[in-house]
Amino acid sequence: MKVYFDNAATTAMDDRVIEAMLPFMKSHFGNPSSVHSHGREVRTAIEKSRKKVAELLNASPSEIFFTSGGTEADNTALVCGIESHAITHAITSPIEHHAVLHTLEVLAKKGMVKLSILDVNDRGEIDLNQLEELLKTNPKSLVSLMHANNEIGNLNDLDRIGALAKEHEAFFHSDTVQTMGHYVHDLKLLPVDAIVAGGHKFHGPKGSGFLFVRKDKKIHPFIHGGAQERNMRGGTENVIGIIGISKALELAYEDMAGHRTHIEKIKKHFIEKLVQELPGVEFNGLSADMDKSLYTVLNVSLPPSESNRGMLLFNLDLEGISASGGSACSSGATVGSHVLRALHHNPERDSVRFSFSRFNTLDEVDYTVRKLKELYAVEV
Amino acid sequence: MKVYFDNAATTAMDDRVIEAMLPFMKSHFGNPSSVHSHGREVRTAIEKSRKKVAELLNASPSEIFFTSGGTEADNTALVCGIESHAITHAITSPIEHHAVLHTLEVLAKKGMVKLSILDVNDRGEIDLNQLEELLKTNPKSLVSLMHANNEIGNLNDLDRIGALAKEHEAFFHSDTVQTMGHYVHDLKLLPVDAIVAGGHKFHGPKGSGFLFVRKDKKIHPFIHGGAQERNMRGGTENVIGIIGISKALELAYEDMAGHRTHIEKIKKHFIEKLVQELPGVEFNGLSADMDKSLYTVLNVSLPPSESNRGMLLFNLDLEGISASGGSACSSGATVGSHVLRALHHNPERDSVRFSFSRFNTLDEVDYTVRKLKELYAVEV
Repeated sequence: MKVYFDNAATTAMDDRVIEAMLPFMKSHFGNPSSVHSHGREVRTAIEKSRKKVAELLNASPSEIFFTSGGTEADNTALVCGIESHAITHAITSPIEHHAVLHTLEVLAKKGMVKLSILDVNDRGEIDLNQLEELLKTNPKSLVSLMHANNEIGNLNDLDRIGALAKEHEAFFHSDTVQTMGHYVHDLKLLPVDAIVAGGHKFHGPKGSGFLFVRKDKKIHPFIHGGAQERNMRGGTENVIGIIGISKALELAYEDMAGHRTHIEKIKKHFIEKLVQELPGVEFNGLSADMDKSLYTVLNVSLPPSESNRGMLLFNLDLEGISASGGSACSSGATVGSHVLRALHHNPERDSVRFSFSRFNTLDEVDYTVRKLKELYAVEV
Repeated sequence: MKVYFDNAATTAMDDRVIEAMLPFMKSHFGNPSSVHSHGREVRTAIEKSRKKVAELLNASPSEIFFTSGGTEADNTALVCGIESHAITHAITSPIEHHAVLHTLEVLAKKGMVKLSILDVNDRGEIDLNQLEELLKTNPKSLVSLMHANNEIGNLNDLDRIGALAKEHEAFFHSDTVQTMGHYVHDLKLLPVDAIVAGGHKFHGPKGSGFLFVRKDKKIHPFIHGGAQERNMRGGTENVIGIIGISKALELAYEDMAGHRTHIEKIKKHFIEKLVQELPGVEFNGLSADMDKSLYTVLNVSLPPSESNRGMLLFNLDLEGISASGGSACSSGATVGSHVLRALHHNPERDSVRFSFSRFNTLDEVDYTVRKLKELYAVEV
């Protein structure tokens, strides 16, 4: 059995997304900036995609900018948000994605901002009182706090954070890569200035993404060049990426409740089976709390085991199960998860992030728990 | 008849490129940074692509970084080249692509570099004596001069420019977007520190590109995030883009001489027919000089004509002919071509850039010249 439980790293593309992209690989190849018929048909498709994304998010098309992915979108929001709004102080948390954390660290190192990192407790919860204090004492702040953590699934209360940011006139950016296409974002209501998406997290193509920047918080471009994206991003558009991400978002919104119900069933079943079958199992962050974490992510902490230590993902892989130790983006490095480290996770215990999509089944959960039980049986 | 003569803006994808990309849309969807089997198969494909590109260019795989396109690659080389090598002075020309020109202008405005713009004559030839003088008097310089101009096709002598840069220990970046896949770049011989590519200029996908940075001129990342591209570019890789651009480059090198012969025939025929059929026709820059300009570009200046003035591209489009007034990247703007302006082109005359690929035919040239003749017949 082949089980893919690493959907927070990337998802399989939906066939309907591929179908939508194909004509723009084969026949509709014009440069969207060209004024002739070859160009115009592609320009039309891009602007329809932008309109579709804007409609789904209850935003204006002029607030949506297509990028090469979530990371570029985060970099754009942070670097250009700080430069364009004369920000002198940035606030984030130690469990943000590296796209945010490393970018802010670089800006701090260059002396462009003072950087404050909020405390988190051992469950990964951010101290919002500390956020309020920092906002009070630092005018011209930018707040960057993710909607949901990619490793432990913790959901942040964007309404509360956004209200605080607004009260203190801070620029509020949220890395929404893990929630886009899985939760409703109503940008007329959500008090954010900038959010981002990566298409491949919701069955769209890798290399596609977008940035939302609220009208009254305009920023300057990050990538300079031609007049593409209304002068906000130079470079010929990744047409198939744009067609793909907008189609993927459309499909996600078409039956978000149905998918959520299906995936929640899988996550609940997984938790119950693990507790039942694997004595000593624990869950990292808030990931076992169905209300306070992503329904797509379950981060499992397993009891110390000589035979699995440091080998658990490898052992699972041998059984055909693809899961992850943390963020795929840093799995090339051997330094371990900065998120689990911030939570003071016991390094004697191995952790696995299982993450789900609408393509997963309950049978896959049973198979995985059975294999985990076998792997840990030696020491029971 | 439908004629696509705008290949300098973008090219039709080669069917074999699409075929190579498809498996990575359908079955091989893993995140290349994931350590499990789903990830490893994609990682392998990416590294094979990098090796292929490096081999074709006679470079090392560690010198090739995949990007979202030529513009991002140019931005990376310039912004990070300047920052990483403590450059204080940049030299470029007024007819560079906006990806270079606007980026350097922004850096100059921020006070990061002093910017010198070389003189060009009315044929678009750069003053290399002036370059030498500037290099002599400005240590810590960066030179950014394109291999070939995208509008008028002028080829620069990279060997001579590179030798001057080397002599004065300057960082030499060249925007090679228009020559990559059309000319051989042997990076063991070519005296450049950084060059770039955009896949869609040689029958690969839009949204794909790469940056070459010579080993001894390492630069820091432009987009911060995960450890992708050997810590040089954060963000999940555009897998299909990488597969596509490397396949397109492979195909380009497979029969570059054959394609060149075919396209040169088209360009020569076009020049001859125009001179024969359209009295008063002229050619902008060096584009009629087969040795000193891109074989893929012919920039035609037509005699003043009341009925076509400002309408020529539109009139051609009505006849099914797609061509361009200049760079597609700035055609959204109505300010006209900055290249032709720098050449003091007579604004009474309309200019059209016709640009060719191996998919074009001699019949298309005959059709186009016939239509041009009809359009200009009114006043003859």
